[in-house]
Amino acid sequence: MAERIYLDWNATAPLRPQALAAAAEALEACGNPSSVHAEGRAVRRRIEEAREQVAALVGAEPRNVVFTSGGTEANMTALCPNLVPASPGNGPEMRPRACLVVSAIEHPSVLAGGRFARNAVEMAPVGPDGRCDLAALGRQLAALAQKGVRPLVSIMLANNETGVVQPVSQAAGLVHEAGGVLHVDAVQGAGRIACNINDLGADLLSLSGHKIGGPKGVGALIKRDQALHFADPLVKGGGQERGARAGTENVPGIAGFGAAAALARQALAEDSARMRALRDRLEAGLKAMMPEAIVFGAEAERLPNTTLFAVPGIKAETAVIALDLDGIAVSSGAACSSGKVQPSHVLEAMGVAPPLARGAIRASLGPTTTEFEVDRFLDAWLRLSKTLLKESRGIAA
Amino acid sequence: MAERIYLDWNATAPLRPQALAAAAEALEACGNPSSVHAEGRAVRRRIEEAREQVAALVGAEPRNVVFTSGGTEANMTALCPNLVPASPGNGPEMRPRACLVVSAIEHPSVLAGGRFARNAVEMAPVGPDGRCDLAALGRQLAALAQKGVRPLVSIMLANNETGVVQPVSQAAGLVHEAGGVLHVDAVQGAGRIACNINDLGADLLSLSGHKIGGPKGVGALIKRDQALHFADPLVKGGGQERGARAGTENVPGIAGFGAAAALARQALAEDSARMRALRDRLEAGLKAMMPEAIVFGAEAERLPNTTLFAVPGIKAETAVIALDLDGIAVSSGAACSSGKVQPSHVLEAMGVAPPLARGAIRASLGPTTTEFEVDRFLDAWLRLSKTLLKESRGIAA
Repeated sequence: MAERIYLDWNATAPLRPQALAAAAEALEACGNPSSVHAEGRAVRRRIEEAREQVAALVGAEPRNVVFTSGGTEANMTALCPNLVPASPGNGPEMRPRACLVVSAIEHPSVLAGGRFARNAVEMAPVGPDGRCDLAALGRQLAALAQKGVRPLVSIMLANNETGVVQPVSQAAGLVHEAGGVLHVDAVQGAGRIACNINDLGADLLSLSGHKIGGPKGVGALIKRDQALHFADPLVKGGGQERGARAGTENVPGIAGFGAAAALARQALAEDSARMRALRDRLEAGLKAMMPEAIVFGAEAERLPNTTLFAVPGIKAETAVIALDLDGIAVSSGAACSSGKVQPSHVLEAMGVAPPLARGAIRASLGPTTTEFEVDRFLDAWLRLSKTLLKESRGIAA
Repeated sequence: MAERIYLDWNATAPLRPQALAAAAEALEACGNPSSVHAEGRAVRRRIEEAREQVAALVGAEPRNVVFTSGGTEANMTALCPNLVPASPGNGPEMRPRACLVVSAIEHPSVLAGGRFARNAVEMAPVGPDGRCDLAALGRQLAALAQKGVRPLVSIMLANNETGVVQPVSQAAGLVHEAGGVLHVDAVQGAGRIACNINDLGADLLSLSGHKIGGPKGVGALIKRDQALHFADPLVKGGGQERGARAGTENVPGIAGFGAAAALARQALAEDSARMRALRDRLEAGLKAMMPEAIVFGAEAERLPNTTLFAVPGIKAETAVIALDLDGIAVSSGAACSSGKVQPSHVLEAMGVAPPLARGAIRASLGPTTTEFEVDRFLDAWLRLSKTLLKESRGIAA
């Protein structure tokens, strides 16, 4: 696979060499971080170093970082009615939150509603540009406030399929005004655009290691304010992670995640500019070749590395397989839902007609993507799309 | 730390070289296992290979293995009221289980009761030998049956502190007679004694990667019968692990776990005999030196690698620190609860008096432990215990 071209970084990013080195070193370090002997303490220090690196990526305090087994577990841990201030008292702020509001384009792990009952989950709409509709959200929050409900709200930093950046800080203002708490799934945004928990106004923020060049199997849930308390941890038992998440820590995963976070932070501006230039080259090449190509969410601010496009008459499923055989890895929608042939819930929420949505192909780039790779993709697309279009017309005829 | 002696394998085992190689190779493999392209499919194959290796360790079918982030998450996933047969129908077998019965010496992640309400958890007693009291369990199950309650029961294969092997297959008979379901936390037993899910009669079985020489951060929950269904997964969202556990798989962890499981299975008889001879040497040396030393659970069948002992007058906390300074890693009780100074719940359940329980030191061995290391431990203990005893008498005087 030496000559293959990987343009599916939103599904998972190749490991950064420094993250590989950190994970490999930690794999060899024996010792349970909860043990008091020298081996245990050495491993514990490694975790705390990574905690500082991950905290720095989002401008949080290290003590507010809870390591999890990934973005999904971070989301599941966050979406819990028993999310209360640590302060004593039994005023309204201590009551479980009766309602969860999620944007319609969230990741399946957020749409599943975490530990809220099905009927306690409300959907917030997005506009045709793929951005959360703030006016509609405001009305929803006002209606809940009238009923005395202080909701938990979950809005992602950037969508994994379209790359559209969400108006998180404005949403935070609305949520806080309504007495709510805001969770931000920053899994796809972190390392690609600014992701400071204070600037965003997020009360809770989820990260995933493998989306920023760290290992698979590790993530973090991060609090802005130490006072917010996980009264009902998802994974209970031992006292690890200050009681917020039991179980022996994934030390190699955490060490690799920390190293990846440090690099993602340092290289953000440079990586971002590089990826944007290449993504724009890809889209310009595509449009020049096929003016009828549609780039979803192009009117909104997007992640610099993501393009989701469709050409009327070409089915994504077939195109992805053809590209794969040609040595190029892209995806149709999100990796988590592949295998299931169903139109994207993201495009559906944006009002895209199902036949066009079924044509959506995602190419997502990374810091090591090259101009050569983008041009190879465009060459392949030029060749393959003609055949795919002919086939589609043949079938239609 | 080249010359240090590590006798805390029950807290975590050093990585087996083959597990390190497998994990390191998987770290470098890019691709999300849910992706349909070549990169995704290659990573998916790696997971399925590991699934076969882990299944073989316990005599289960690969399709019945659900990978988790560790033993704690496996236990949390198992201990759920909504554990039902996959068959349709709405008879009594489809009702949520109203009660969880756990032995008094379970790991904290089982004692926490998973997703059962606090008042729905009953404790099953153990005898002074550290074994689950089957007569008492039988009476408990009969009383529940009279109330029409078909419980979920959780009994570990072997205790992590004493190493005492539990009468799991007999318990399975009682549990099944009472219409119950049996979960077995085999985290400490697997790879050290026989652990065949069918022979044990366990309906569900938990494993942890890092206790058998695999990486930290990975484990498995295994079903004996495919028909048992996790109607309410702990981690929801994507469709990974046949819907039983969402989130991108920890591929390096899983690959390393698989390699460790394959080795643990191959080397079981040899490893076990080696460890038993060394553990017996350690205990004989200890007894020869200090006839007043007490080995907990010595009357019962124990894991071949574990000894938990106390010498009246010596506090474990002080002894563990003194040994650590002398280059030897052992523990006082379980790693998960270190940091908290409280007597072991296991010894308490066995009726050991708190002053003696506070002296309990655990030395746990592994497949690469040597005679030299055991003798170095005995030498150190001879020197240090005299000082510790003098100090303790000095304080008492």
